[in-house]
Amino acid sequence: MTGKTSPESELARLLPPTVRLALEYFAALEDPATPVVEYLPPPALQEALGLSFGSEAQSIDAILAAAKTTLRYSVRTGHPRFFNQLYGGVDPAGILGEWITALVNTSMYTFEAAPVGTLVETALIERMNRCVGYTAGEGEGIFTPGGTISNLMALLAARHRVFPDAKRLGIHALEQPVVFLSAEAHYSTPRAASVAGFGTDAAIPIATDPVGRMIPSALDQAITAAKRNGQTPVMIVATSGTTVPGAFDPIDPIADIAERHDLWLHVDASFGGGVLFSDRHRHLMAGVERAESVTWNPHKMMGLPLACSAILMRVPGTLEATNGMHAEYLFHGAEGPTCDLGDLSLQCGRRVDAFKLWFSWMALGDMGYARRVDRLFDLAHTFQGMLDERPGFHIIREPEGTNVCFRYLPSADRSLAEEARLRRESDVTLAVRRRLLTSGRFMINYATLDGAATFRIVMSNPRTTDVDLGGLLDAIEEFAEVLP
Amino acid sequence: MTGKTSPESELARLLPPTVRLALEYFAALEDPATPVVEYLPPPALQEALGLSFGSEAQSIDAILAAAKTTLRYSVRTGHPRFFNQLYGGVDPAGILGEWITALVNTSMYTFEAAPVGTLVETALIERMNRCVGYTAGEGEGIFTPGGTISNLMALLAARHRVFPDAKRLGIHALEQPVVFLSAEAHYSTPRAASVAGFGTDAAIPIATDPVGRMIPSALDQAITAAKRNGQTPVMIVATSGTTVPGAFDPIDPIADIAERHDLWLHVDASFGGGVLFSDRHRHLMAGVERAESVTWNPHKMMGLPLACSAILMRVPGTLEATNGMHAEYLFHGAEGPTCDLGDLSLQCGRRVDAFKLWFSWMALGDMGYARRVDRLFDLAHTFQGMLDERPGFHIIREPEGTNVCFRYLPSADRSLAEEARLRRESDVTLAVRRRLLTSGRFMINYATLDGAATFRIVMSNPRTTDVDLGGLLDAIEEFAEVLP
Repeated sequence: MTGKTSPESELARLLPPTVRLALEYFAALEDPATPVVEYLPPPALQEALGLSFGSEAQSIDAILAAAKTTLRYSVRTGHPRFFNQLYGGVDPAGILGEWITALVNTSMYTFEAAPVGTLVETALIERMNRCVGYTAGEGEGIFTPGGTISNLMALLAARHRVFPDAKRLGIHALEQPVVFLSAEAHYSTPRAASVAGFGTDAAIPIATDPVGRMIPSALDQAITAAKRNGQTPVMIVATSGTTVPGAFDPIDPIADIAERHDLWLHVDASFGGGVLFSDRHRHLMAGVERAESVTWNPHKMMGLPLACSAILMRVPGTLEATNGMHAEYLFHGAEGPTCDLGDLSLQCGRRVDAFKLWFSWMALGDMGYARRVDRLFDLAHTFQGMLDERPGFHIIREPEGTNVCFRYLPSADRSLAEEARLRRESDVTLAVRRRLLTSGRFMINYATLDGAATFRIVMSNPRTTDVDLGGLLDAIEEFAEVLP
Repeated sequence: MTGKTSPESELARLLPPTVRLALEYFAALEDPATPVVEYLPPPALQEALGLSFGSEAQSIDAILAAAKTTLRYSVRTGHPRFFNQLYGGVDPAGILGEWITALVNTSMYTFEAAPVGTLVETALIERMNRCVGYTAGEGEGIFTPGGTISNLMALLAARHRVFPDAKRLGIHALEQPVVFLSAEAHYSTPRAASVAGFGTDAAIPIATDPVGRMIPSALDQAITAAKRNGQTPVMIVATSGTTVPGAFDPIDPIADIAERHDLWLHVDASFGGGVLFSDRHRHLMAGVERAESVTWNPHKMMGLPLACSAILMRVPGTLEATNGMHAEYLFHGAEGPTCDLGDLSLQCGRRVDAFKLWFSWMALGDMGYARRVDRLFDLAHTFQGMLDERPGFHIIREPEGTNVCFRYLPSADRSLAEEARLRRESDVTLAVRRRLLTSGRFMINYATLDGAATFRIVMSNPRTTDVDLGGLLDAIEEFAEVLP
């Protein structure tokens, strides 16, 4: 690969074997013997990878071997027993979209550089705004590299509304800006507060109910207290699908409070946005059309390849007012109206994330996404029933969505006193989870709830079956009962 | 694609035809008759795309047809006559890397979720730090979605150094923070100043010399003046490869000034970083190892598929101190030391951009990148010679890198007075450039220099030939001479 051969001839040698690798890789997911991950600790994996690159060019065979090794030791996130993160499953049309993005290799700032991408993204944003319930004349948006950047953009827009001079003059004159969010909300909002110059202390956590939902009356009190303390409320964040229990904050009552205090309401539906397709579960986001902004990551509940995230705004023009820098060398608006998206974004160069969602939406349709989401909710419900039936397992939060938080107490420990039980359950979670991971049989994550490490299962793959779920519980019992 | 069939069987129908499409697509680049873009204005393209997606699932054939249409109407950025942006060419191993990323489909926050990605990215960052010249014990970094986010991260790190309380308490107590950059630097630094709460006015532009390089004495004066005015200098940004003329700010003298004023020096080598591989051109970045941080986008001069950008830091620990949020549910550091990268990043979920650079670096080696960069510089030099020889063409900035800025004056207008000439040249640039684009024969961008629209050619594809360059000048003459 010295540059003397044509890219075409190199691609002719690289791409067909890649398709064979890909098909073998996905065929293996149909085989129950395939591990979720062929786990190696970092030093051993380092050795297996080799990671030799440097002055000398290497052969195509060496590169294909590296690709094969990469697939071998990566986590099989499309495996029906991968429950570790808020994403999973395999979206074939989405993969096609990513492959086309790599071939097209352009940047989304201008129509001229990305004509197809620009029109596709615009159409997708339009459809997503309709899903949210924004009415005609409302709605704009842009794809971002992920929910954290989307949530940052929401905070910047809210800051711009409260203090439009911030863009040019900074926020020195802005008296103690604060934002409100559920105590179980994702860390991206405190981080955004830090980035934007407010500081993480400016993110005020609001108490949650036993399901994990923000308590509206507590929010109302916190806003009133902040105003009394001379702070400047800038934004409320309601979460649709919290990271750990997967709870949905009640948007309508929160929107009432936002209206009463004339505050920006942002809905972080990074995780939960997919419920908008489901007649059965859409009610969890009732009132979302009242939000000024919405973050929605199709790469989570909808199964798209990472990353696919959108920030949606109710009022057109908000993104450009907040972010536009009008760089003359790039955006030739002086020549006439354009459909360039670049000045809506916080980025300059921006990868095309639109093709995968377009192809996937074509492949599945609204109904396909609805079936997927309903299936994930059904799996969580089934799993909840299994936990109720099995001795030693107990659910820590009443599940509202596709996540279930639970712990297991081995049979020998069931007469322990409260505090010792909690400590034992926590230890069991950590030890068993580690063994599940290193055995490659299952991947499931944990978080601390009530001071104890707690399993958090995320249903993200519609091809997960009851057998997979029962198998997980069997394995937890098996490992836990022999723990010292 | 109703979800009843397996992903594997759907992929078996989608992926092999995609390889055929890909190989046809790249074979066409070898044919001189292939246009750079089959240009359609937005309404016509809208119609050609159809963009039908919604409630009903569509067939695999329909999706493959959409993929084919996407390739047809997208800009062929791998075409040797694409000179429009700071990227271009085709990196076969990079495409393979992107395809593998889509198959693996994971997020870079933890080793556990991305074991291979984590080790590969760590090894690449290590190599890039060695290229910069950071010594043993120095250097850390992370991949980001692009140069704008990388530059934002540099500004946040500089802010953290001056005022470590900013993360938690905000920047209210920070007196008029300012940053310094070349008057021709990219808009990402003023944008970062806006995002971080400083405001765009806090980005102080420093005068440039006729080549477009920051004048160190002017920088020194500006810093002294800012201090006198009660402002708090936070950072100097030196640019390696400015957006329009492609100039390289003189880092060593700027680093002297940064040292004298105890200021953070950031080098934005988003565009120019590739010169570090070249014995012939590395001197343009002499002194870069003295910078506290460096942005470097392999997706520009090195030809990687978008996006591939790194922010490098001289002092290990800086990124975590600035950005770390220590989310317990995700980062299980309490269990022992980890090699998780997530808390170094401004994102949470983060796409794997490491595989493509790994495979590409294997394929090319340091020497391959050096040859690529040298070739692009040689093309710019050749083009400069052609401009000197052809009547009517003149160079606007003495080119230092791979960009050449020039204008053309039609033969009938050569006796015009200075001001009228400038206006005419500007009009010619706009009109001819538009015709080049819509004809599909060439894509070349423009920017305003001396108040006139000026062609900016970027050499980004090593397969561009002298025939391509001569052909561009022929086409400019051809279109310009018949303008009304």
